[in-house]
Amino acid sequence: MVVKEYVTYNQVHQLCQEAAPRILADFQPQLMIAIGGGGYVPARILRSFLKQPGSSNIPIQAIGLSLYEQLPSTHPSAADSPGEVEQPGTKVMRTQWLDLTSLGEMKNLVGKRILIVDEVDDTRTTLEYAVKELEKDVELARQKLGYEGEKTKFSIFVLHNKNKEKKGQLPEDMLDENRYLAARTVPDVWICYPWEATDIEEHDALAARQTIT
Amino acid sequence: MVVKEYVTYNQVHQLCQEAAPRILADFQPQLMIAIGGGGYVPARILRSFLKQPGSSNIPIQAIGLSLYEQLPSTHPSAADSPGEVEQPGTKVMRTQWLDLTSLGEMKNLVGKRILIVDEVDDTRTTLEYAVKELEKDVELARQKLGYEGEKTKFSIFVLHNKNKEKKGQLPEDMLDENRYLAARTVPDVWICYPWEATDIEEHDALAARQTIT
Repeated sequence: MVVKEYVTYNQVHQLCQEAAPRILADFQPQLMIAIGGGGYVPARILRSFLKQPGSSNIPIQAIGLSLYEQLPSTHPSAADSPGEVEQPGTKVMRTQWLDLTSLGEMKNLVGKRILIVDEVDDTRTTLEYAVKELEKDVELARQKLGYEGEKTKFSIFVLHNKNKEKKGQLPEDMLDENRYLAARTVPDVWICYPWEATDIEEHDALAARQTIT
Repeated sequence: MVVKEYVTYNQVHQLCQEAAPRILADFQPQLMIAIGGGGYVPARILRSFLKQPGSSNIPIQAIGLSLYEQLPSTHPSAADSPGEVEQPGTKVMRTQWLDLTSLGEMKNLVGKRILIVDEVDDTRTTLEYAVKELEKDVELARQKLGYEGEKTKFSIFVLHNKNKEKKGQLPEDMLDENRYLAARTVPDVWICYPWEATDIEEHDALAARQTIT
């Protein structure tokens, strides 16, 4: 039986609100990168709570990543290896990447503190991809500019981390330096986010019943 | 006195849900462009309701636009013209634009039906900018490719349209062909969206009181 956990919009809002002071204290982000579509809602809410009086909003850049199912029928290379076990959802596809024209080239990321935002850390595949690719792009830019000692610091915020074996890995220094924050760590359940609800009132009622029991 | 209208997350969700069948019937979008940060939440919710059984999700590209205040102190050109009246919030600044590498160049937009999503149509300045710039980019791509008769159709969805005199203009054919949809048209009030609430429960209580009176 698949256990479902229903999360309301107001709970998502409060998870972001609760995390914001720690994000401000520990990460002091100068830019957020929202992984779409799941990261859009928490990133927008977080922006409100990260706003400091007298300062501008922290800018958000959205990137689009989706887990891609490798099907033998459409991927001849997989079909060519009959012994290979199909691994659904292990390839990451970019649907949007950073817009370098508005960022004024990648150099504007060099030496910055960047917060990557997503809704859930499930297998960690998407997060691993995001961090690796962003680090690679920034390192190339740093070398090109000849900057020294301008290390870009990536941190991660997710609403929920599923307590399970991860397929993806995050950099050791990120974990060691506590640059990973999950508002909640949950068992390996099916998390039902409100933006996927077809009946939001029933969704809220199911969530309320959970909280009571 | 500024009249405030409080909108809850569930109301935002239901406004998207209610609009989805009309969007599917009239616009049949193949791509959404979310204007950040306000368009992030409605775009993510809409994606759920626009999903057709057996088809993939409609991809979302995020762009970032913000209204820019021209202050004489920081803009010498304005300070040089002492008779000029300051126009706060009339210049649009791009903080993110389309990522052409993932879109496979702008040609992938040519001939498509594209839905632009934002939370509110206030002065219409941002929407005018978005439509004009997107149309320009797509037209350039079309000419370069030598495509004929492949007109790209932009449509707009906003949660709220404020019934007021607009500073920005939308293309006449967009309005004539009903490619503009506002879930609600409201007087020129201050709309309080939930993602800006510092106390979401009080926000909901204020919204509930409004609905009753």
